[in-house]
Amino acid sequence: MTFETLSEHASFNGTMGFYRHDATETQCSMRFSVFVPPQAKDGPVPVLTYLAGLTCTEETFMTKAGPQRVAAELGLMLVAPDTSPRGENVPDDPDGGWDFGHGAGFYLDATEAPYAAHYRMCSYITQELNTVIRDGFPADPNRQGIFGHSMGGHGALTIGLKNPDTYRSISAFAPICSPLHCPWGDKALRLYLGPQQETWREYDAAELILSLSKDDAHGRPPLLIDQGMSDSFLKTQLHPHLLENACSEVGLSLTLRSHAGYDHGYYFISTFMEDHLRHHAAALK
Amino acid sequence: MTFETLSEHASFNGTMGFYRHDATETQCSMRFSVFVPPQAKDGPVPVLTYLAGLTCTEETFMTKAGPQRVAAELGLMLVAPDTSPRGENVPDDPDGGWDFGHGAGFYLDATEAPYAAHYRMCSYITQELNTVIRDGFPADPNRQGIFGHSMGGHGALTIGLKNPDTYRSISAFAPICSPLHCPWGDKALRLYLGPQQETWREYDAAELILSLSKDDAHGRPPLLIDQGMSDSFLKTQLHPHLLENACSEVGLSLTLRSHAGYDHGYYFISTFMEDHLRHHAAALK
Repeated sequence: MTFETLSEHASFNGTMGFYRHDATETQCSMRFSVFVPPQAKDGPVPVLTYLAGLTCTEETFMTKAGPQRVAAELGLMLVAPDTSPRGENVPDDPDGGWDFGHGAGFYLDATEAPYAAHYRMCSYITQELNTVIRDGFPADPNRQGIFGHSMGGHGALTIGLKNPDTYRSISAFAPICSPLHCPWGDKALRLYLGPQQETWREYDAAELILSLSKDDAHGRPPLLIDQGMSDSFLKTQLHPHLLENACSEVGLSLTLRSHAGYDHGYYFISTFMEDHLRHHAAALK
Repeated sequence: MTFETLSEHASFNGTMGFYRHDATETQCSMRFSVFVPPQAKDGPVPVLTYLAGLTCTEETFMTKAGPQRVAAELGLMLVAPDTSPRGENVPDDPDGGWDFGHGAGFYLDATEAPYAAHYRMCSYITQELNTVIRDGFPADPNRQGIFGHSMGGHGALTIGLKNPDTYRSISAFAPICSPLHCPWGDKALRLYLGPQQETWREYDAAELILSLSKDDAHGRPPLLIDQGMSDSFLKTQLHPHLLENACSEVGLSLTLRSHAGYDHGYYFISTFMEDHLRHHAAALK
């Protein structure tokens, strides 16, 4: 598990770094970024993984969301992977779209040709990258949380819900709450997983929640979700009411905050970033 | 003085906007960004103009420096112009470099052909853009400050020092302190202003400070400058010691902070942004 340092920068008395490695799961070079807070000088710190949205990279969160100040205060390590495998050998959207393929891995393990060989972002994040971080950085692997935005909110919810022993806190900004019920999800899951919708359910946050027993749901960490009410994707792609209904059905604790005037972008995300970091820090203490 | 709204986004209970207008001074379409804090609902607020560095645009500061949170707390309007005139008709670096021409206006009024017609960033900022902001936004023109980074630090220092009635507070991140004594300055001022170095002095912060009488210097607002000690441009281009010497010579109050480990980029700037905003807010109350 070796990786190469691309650049490191002092930031809020911690270190903001960009790295790459040859990943086994995705069979390509993968980039990722890590913010190491100053508290890591004194021992392992909790790890919070952020999954970005369509068209983003490992850099977007770290440059646009402004998470370092509060992460440095709370002693949280931040990890941001890229949003898909990339490279000339990695098949892209056959139609040249921005909502599938490069920059749009949907944080799943594809089963359909020609995508199955490279598009294994779920295993990459939960296993391979997790091992790289555990071995290469002053991380406490027993205190991890996960969050994300839009497609990455979908990724954080599904990965977090399926791996409760790894991720002890979950939150999302404007997540895709049910890929089964939106055009982005229908396109991506059909191409990555095939036409049998039954196989899509394990990558659908609302369905995963509905599959929890009430006892299991009761023991899960509470979800925090922020949603802008001027988000142009709210009614067509995101459907937070499906998540709300599912949580209500099984008794999973959800704080869903609706913010008048806010849109889908990083000015929305940065506004509420501090609340999310404090949500995770409280669970990971 | 009309302008077009390109986009507006809610941010920290204020509004982050991007705009364009056909500028008279620079004879081209100019973009600028404005953050209006929530306090502007109750009346005009102080205005803080940020000048960015080489290769940057009106967007860089607002996306990468994370100033909105504290500006919203302090009730400061933030204004960021582009770093040069642009467009097919605007002459660029004859050698294709990134340190002159488009993205590198050096915040001066050029006198040499073929640059003099468009490269009038000094007059554009102090007069034309200032009027647009005064007339189009809830700004208090009697409470203005100016700051910037690198080439924009040079711009903020020179423009601020020459216009004390307009700008009542000044600060900079890793500024070019004396264009007369660095390769970037030598190239740009030679092409924009011609070979007579005497004409360069009004665009050299160290020289401008040395030209102040002790009485004048004593009445000026104190300067705040942050400098990273791992900044790769520190010894070749920036020369803060020349500014320090000049301030000492005439008795101008300067707080020059040197930060071990920090480089020239926006992770450095964002780390110390809050201190600069509080420096300006204190002067503009």
